[in-house]
Amino acid sequence: MLNAFNWLGGEMRVTPPTQVAVLGLGLIGGSLLRRLIELGIAVTGYDADPATRAAAATAGGRVAETVPETVAGADLVVLAVPLPAAGAVLDTIAATGYAGLLTDVTSVKGAPLALATERCPDARWVGGHPMAGREQSGFAASDPGLFDGCAWVLCLEPETTVVDWLTVASLVTAVGARAVPVTAAEHDTAVARISHAPHVVAAALATRAAEGDTGRLALALGAGSFRDGTRVAATRPALTAAMCGGNAAALRTELDALLARISEARRLLDDADPVAALTTWFGPGQAVRSRWPAAAGQPEKRAATREELLAVGRGGGWITTVASDGTTVTAVPHRLG
Amino acid sequence: MLNAFNWLGGEMRVTPPTQVAVLGLGLIGGSLLRRLIELGIAVTGYDADPATRAAAATAGGRVAETVPETVAGADLVVLAVPLPAAGAVLDTIAATGYAGLLTDVTSVKGAPLALATERCPDARWVGGHPMAGREQSGFAASDPGLFDGCAWVLCLEPETTVVDWLTVASLVTAVGARAVPVTAAEHDTAVARISHAPHVVAAALATRAAEGDTGRLALALGAGSFRDGTRVAATRPALTAAMCGGNAAALRTELDALLARISEARRLLDDADPVAALTTWFGPGQAVRSRWPAAAGQPEKRAATREELLAVGRGGGWITTVASDGTTVTAVPHRLG
Repeated sequence: MLNAFNWLGGEMRVTPPTQVAVLGLGLIGGSLLRRLIELGIAVTGYDADPATRAAAATAGGRVAETVPETVAGADLVVLAVPLPAAGAVLDTIAATGYAGLLTDVTSVKGAPLALATERCPDARWVGGHPMAGREQSGFAASDPGLFDGCAWVLCLEPETTVVDWLTVASLVTAVGARAVPVTAAEHDTAVARISHAPHVVAAALATRAAEGDTGRLALALGAGSFRDGTRVAATRPALTAAMCGGNAAALRTELDALLARISEARRLLDDADPVAALTTWFGPGQAVRSRWPAAAGQPEKRAATREELLAVGRGGGWITTVASDGTTVTAVPHRLG
Repeated sequence: MLNAFNWLGGEMRVTPPTQVAVLGLGLIGGSLLRRLIELGIAVTGYDADPATRAAAATAGGRVAETVPETVAGADLVVLAVPLPAAGAVLDTIAATGYAGLLTDVTSVKGAPLALATERCPDARWVGGHPMAGREQSGFAASDPGLFDGCAWVLCLEPETTVVDWLTVASLVTAVGARAVPVTAAEHDTAVARISHAPHVVAAALATRAAEGDTGRLALALGAGSFRDGTRVAATRPALTAAMCGGNAAALRTELDALLARISEARRLLDDADPVAALTTWFGPGQAVRSRWPAAAGQPEKRAATREELLAVGRGGGWITTVASDGTTVTAVPHRLG
């Protein structure tokens, strides 16, 4: 249990959470509740839906009937509700006078940071995003192994203390995830690029394919590149729209960059030698994709300072363990191809 | 053998090819050679590469040493060389005085039609495109079962006679493929939509992901939507560029339509309620993709006229058998979701 912590040697500055509250027991919250129970870490869950609470209790979780009951005695609160519900839950937490650590699991990080700062200013916020999506949602889809090896972004803002970050990271690494230290702005730019923009593009390709007189023929001829390039277009529009709309500022920049790059290919079709011009244009994308995903590098000890941690995240690396004296972490660099 | 033909009843207007020449023994040409041998149809192959000729001969094919030898006695010549090599091979065929049926297998149809009309005007051209791509290429990757159930576009231009189309279609259906009757222009628009534009978009997404200070972080966080949305960006740039540059006119139109649609999403991010606006925007793509691919409808007998055949192709359907009297075909409609 808790084998990710190193209890030996030195003064202990990072005290791992001893009582965790999980608010919202869907795929992520439910999986976290079950994993923490497996690890023997004290945890209480809550969900607004009575049927979900009943299901979680049946699965062996300690489940409370209200938000204040859930938060009482906790030293880490995990907000695992959809972003539109977060404001009201934060108000309820604030009304209890809670002043401990507070994290979340939503797919954008700028908006929850602003919300938490405004609605629950006494709590110490460390925004989080486990990159552990699945086709299914809800407690029924939860899985205590969901976070094994997954990247779990944890935001390290100028106003976050390193000790608070390390404390939340010690829990995230204990559940098997890779803690990725970044700022909310860096996170939001990265997910706009590798998730939100691909969703927009997939929807545009799928919509266009069916248009006009050639639509049925095009859909009949669609094969591998159409299948993969449009797969995520089948996602429920309300979910995709909430994700993209919640990250509007970063997504604007990314869509502008994509539009510029696609327009360049469009222009090269008018070149005197379009095949030669396009061969050059296609080069960088092929170099990137043929080396992706990069392998993990050799783990290394790094000083647990703000600058070092952010350098690990910016470099594409992650933290696997936090030393109990809070002075070092084990970092795995992203080995470029 | 040749169970796709119906030899019973009526005057025989469609005489299936009795001697096929396959020029170019890569993935497609090699697979076709091997399948025709299996079916007991007389076939001779040729490839400019001596090692490929040797490999094909070892696999049991009758392989000739020159293009004129290969074409001698043939009543159907299949041009299975890359588009940049087609002109020279067409000149050699024309020099033999060949005046029979001529088809090809390249992924664009307008350019080969123009080339064949100019360089080999005595042959009767029926452009073709089997939608049977693979990651590997070359004779070593060939497979006689490659065409089972695959869509094989066959062009029916105003200058193509229906009997010539049916004759080539009888061979295509005999090897197990679905013959799709379309014009070259319709084909080129369809593949620009469902293959060439997705390749451009995938390359743009992959290139952008790696850019600037957030590049490494973005690549480290990339998961399912990035993986699938960029898969084809790993293709060799020269191949993708040849495909896109060879279909410049149709691809221009498709990229313009995509750019307009992505720009609309970009604009909606500035809406007063971007989530509501984007929910509407994502709707059509989700409707298309969640019903794709459509199931096959019930086979039906259709008159073998130009109008009926083109209506089948435009509707997303295909031909599975050609009656020997040339008056009817069996068509499978595309059942929309």
